[in-house]
Amino acid sequence: MNNGEKTLKNDRGESNSYNLEHIFNPRSVAVIGASSGFGKWGQMVLSNIIGGGFKGKIFPVNPKEKVICGLKTYMNIKDVPCDVDLAFITTPAKTVPHVLESCSEKGVKGAVLITSGFSETDEAGKNLEKTIVSMCREKNLPFIGPNTMGIICPYSNLFATGTHTRPKKGTVAFVSQSGNLGNQLIYWAEQQGIGISLFVGSGNNAMLTSIDYMEYLENDNHTNIIILYIESIQDGRKYLETAKRLNKKKPVIVLKGGHTEAGAAAAASHTGALSGESSIVEAAFRQAGLLSVTIPSELLDLSAGFSSLPIPKGNRVGIVTLGGGWGVVTSDECNKKGLVLPDIPEKIIENISKYLPPFWSKRNPVDLVGTRDLEIPIVAVEELLKWEGIDAVISLGIVGRLELIRSLIRSTRQVDPSMPAAFLDKMDEFSLEYEKKYIVSMVELMEKYEKPVVGVSLTSTAEGTVRSVSGKKYSGVFYQTPENAVNVLSRMVAYQDFTKSKSSN
Amino acid sequence: MNNGEKTLKNDRGESNSYNLEHIFNPRSVAVIGASSGFGKWGQMVLSNIIGGGFKGKIFPVNPKEKVICGLKTYMNIKDVPCDVDLAFITTPAKTVPHVLESCSEKGVKGAVLITSGFSETDEAGKNLEKTIVSMCREKNLPFIGPNTMGIICPYSNLFATGTHTRPKKGTVAFVSQSGNLGNQLIYWAEQQGIGISLFVGSGNNAMLTSIDYMEYLENDNHTNIIILYIESIQDGRKYLETAKRLNKKKPVIVLKGGHTEAGAAAAASHTGALSGESSIVEAAFRQAGLLSVTIPSELLDLSAGFSSLPIPKGNRVGIVTLGGGWGVVTSDECNKKGLVLPDIPEKIIENISKYLPPFWSKRNPVDLVGTRDLEIPIVAVEELLKWEGIDAVISLGIVGRLELIRSLIRSTRQVDPSMPAAFLDKMDEFSLEYEKKYIVSMVELMEKYEKPVVGVSLTSTAEGTVRSVSGKKYSGVFYQTPENAVNVLSRMVAYQDFTKSKSSN
Repeated sequence: MNNGEKTLKNDRGESNSYNLEHIFNPRSVAVIGASSGFGKWGQMVLSNIIGGGFKGKIFPVNPKEKVICGLKTYMNIKDVPCDVDLAFITTPAKTVPHVLESCSEKGVKGAVLITSGFSETDEAGKNLEKTIVSMCREKNLPFIGPNTMGIICPYSNLFATGTHTRPKKGTVAFVSQSGNLGNQLIYWAEQQGIGISLFVGSGNNAMLTSIDYMEYLENDNHTNIIILYIESIQDGRKYLETAKRLNKKKPVIVLKGGHTEAGAAAAASHTGALSGESSIVEAAFRQAGLLSVTIPSELLDLSAGFSSLPIPKGNRVGIVTLGGGWGVVTSDECNKKGLVLPDIPEKIIENISKYLPPFWSKRNPVDLVGTRDLEIPIVAVEELLKWEGIDAVISLGIVGRLELIRSLIRSTRQVDPSMPAAFLDKMDEFSLEYEKKYIVSMVELMEKYEKPVVGVSLTSTAEGTVRSVSGKKYSGVFYQTPENAVNVLSRMVAYQDFTKSKSSN
Repeated sequence: MNNGEKTLKNDRGESNSYNLEHIFNPRSVAVIGASSGFGKWGQMVLSNIIGGGFKGKIFPVNPKEKVICGLKTYMNIKDVPCDVDLAFITTPAKTVPHVLESCSEKGVKGAVLITSGFSETDEAGKNLEKTIVSMCREKNLPFIGPNTMGIICPYSNLFATGTHTRPKKGTVAFVSQSGNLGNQLIYWAEQQGIGISLFVGSGNNAMLTSIDYMEYLENDNHTNIIILYIESIQDGRKYLETAKRLNKKKPVIVLKGGHTEAGAAAAASHTGALSGESSIVEAAFRQAGLLSVTIPSELLDLSAGFSSLPIPKGNRVGIVTLGGGWGVVTSDECNKKGLVLPDIPEKIIENISKYLPPFWSKRNPVDLVGTRDLEIPIVAVEELLKWEGIDAVISLGIVGRLELIRSLIRSTRQVDPSMPAAFLDKMDEFSLEYEKKYIVSMVELMEKYEKPVVGVSLTSTAEGTVRSVSGKKYSGVFYQTPENAVNVLSRMVAYQDFTKSKSSN
């Protein structure tokens, strides 16, 4: 196979060859059911595609309108005068077979079926879904959904979801079976500065399924990390085989909704699919070495870490902390998660001692005792990184101090008439520059030593968790809490252990 | 004892009677070591006290200055022409004995010893600390610290920490042995809208200790919840007795830094105190019914819940969710945390069915299938609350949808020239009003049924976790994630179980 063609097998083992490139990198799109009614799916998706800056051609289709969002609108997809690669369909469920037929006649190469009212509702919906699947297999028209919240392909500037959240380009691909959870994941990704390569709301997985998306992502050069939220698995054996193979190349992080009895009952009612015996699924994931998580926010934490940091080669951690209390709780967390804090050699203690008062901790964690010295936080991290006895460093509280300094500057302006405004402006500028410089230093040190520095921010800032540095392979990562930093590091160590142990297989 | 007098016992069992009211509600304060040098402790604390709006008299003391922050500055505390209730001391450690002596001569009623360089450093520091403790016991001059980051007393408008974070008035008291952890806790409290009654950086606990603060808080009418971050306990028996007694009246939430071997080693180096056998401390906390947590962010989550919601009377939970996926992961979390999701009676299903399409879940979780209907989210919550088979409701995703609607409004403005601007303005206003109304409804329903509604926000907003409603006893609480909501609810259930089981003792 060439030209990005993928082999698709449906759950009855039938095999087809479709080109998902046309779906994820279309040259032209139609929105069938386009609308100017605020808040309708046909309005939300169309205005998002336009507003997101899609560079290809966009064709609204609606028999009752002439112009929508300033674009000429067509009675029927077949009236569009050019080729259409991808059709988004938002018309009512009962019209969908006819719409898909028109798409096929037009030569459309793929569809995203946003319309709901299929197998997730009732028996009639199930039958309707079967009908369109048979039809589209026959007509060689692959579709995503139905009941999907849409897709986001940042490298094509294609933002085609109902919610207008637009995360930046990056290396993380998300496939979410749930719409609202998917919305929140994408919203968080944007907030936290996590760059994505692809987002797929997989919906009912009627024709294309997570297996197909995994096969696509395996060879997608933009994607380095895969995040899956799944509730049901149709073809468990194939699913696991695919995930396992993929995971050897790129970390696969999976949240299986319905992994408890109560959750499984809720999932059955949500998607209509059996979600499988929880313990069996869990064991299978573990055996495949997948990074299985149980809470949605962890998906984001791991995305940030895996997409921005070098993978640690072992579990030996050095901690550099602005103050003692944080060092204590972080040590506790490391201990619980199987990370060890080696004693640091005398030579390193001597080097760090040049910068700190005589009563500093002289051990790991390196407690900077609230120092204002600007060199030592960077020196301490490098001293630890360059030592062969350490695989990773956790840096606590240097980033985020800026916000507190700014509060002090604001107060001082307000209460001290004798303080020169220019001095305070300079302090502000200087503190901002220092924070930037610290982040750049961390990224440079990661490149130099190929070991991760995981940060924790003293405050939450609008800058987000991931702080990218122009032209650099790695990015700074600064979590809100020590526990998140430690958890991510421990999962990275586990992934490294798994891939290492499997590399000889 | 009257007039707020407290009995203090030090770790040698000696007993003194001090009045902590003068420390936490002073009429006048001095800052000894006041400075106009930006970023010095004497500058940070003084400018914070002034900027925070303290209503009493403020006296800077510094022999080298005439005016600091526009205030007349005194050579010596003894030169101040009025009574001074409380002195903040930031001068170098070796000057502290002399400064405390002056304070005593002046008749100062309490001190906050911000200066470091005592038992947390070396043997000489330990001895110096012993000296000042003996002296101040003799002179009846109670002090906080040394090596404290300061105190915050919102009901006195007294913000006297180095970081200029100013959480609003509320019912949560924090006592933190760690400075930087304390900073972050207070910063988070402000960000999340959690109101506090008191913050004490307890520092080295040399004279006044956590036991004293607990005794004070037991009778403090502003305080309903107590949050403790501790690393070392000097008088374990007394500490536990006090915490246990207090916890029967007001929930005591405790994070013991150094509860693992690695953490204990870090703590020993941090505060110089032995942190006690982890398993014994944990068991003792559990037996006392304290809410013991292991990660700092949980302190805030629990603060938000306990200070804003009625305590649930049992573990039976109803879930109302904007979409299915969230219902699934929340059910999973409930299951893991010992909360049960009862089947809901036919009558309630009938009532809710009036508002939803025929294919809705018809079970708990109540999946609103992304409805735009404005009544049903509130109706569904009330239907569950009024049923005797439910002790609490979790509401997922109604709050926070506003942000996503606003993104859509922004895009629509940008891409659809035919859309009237006035209509979009109205949509924006209407969506904001709806969110406010929803929050008010939740608070009113909590009052009506005396059962908690724990919310999860679809997005993170500047509004924070706690959304107070003017004139109401309870507040809306909307966490970032379902797992946080479930965790807090499960801890509230456990607290209720403990107090119930002990009420007959």
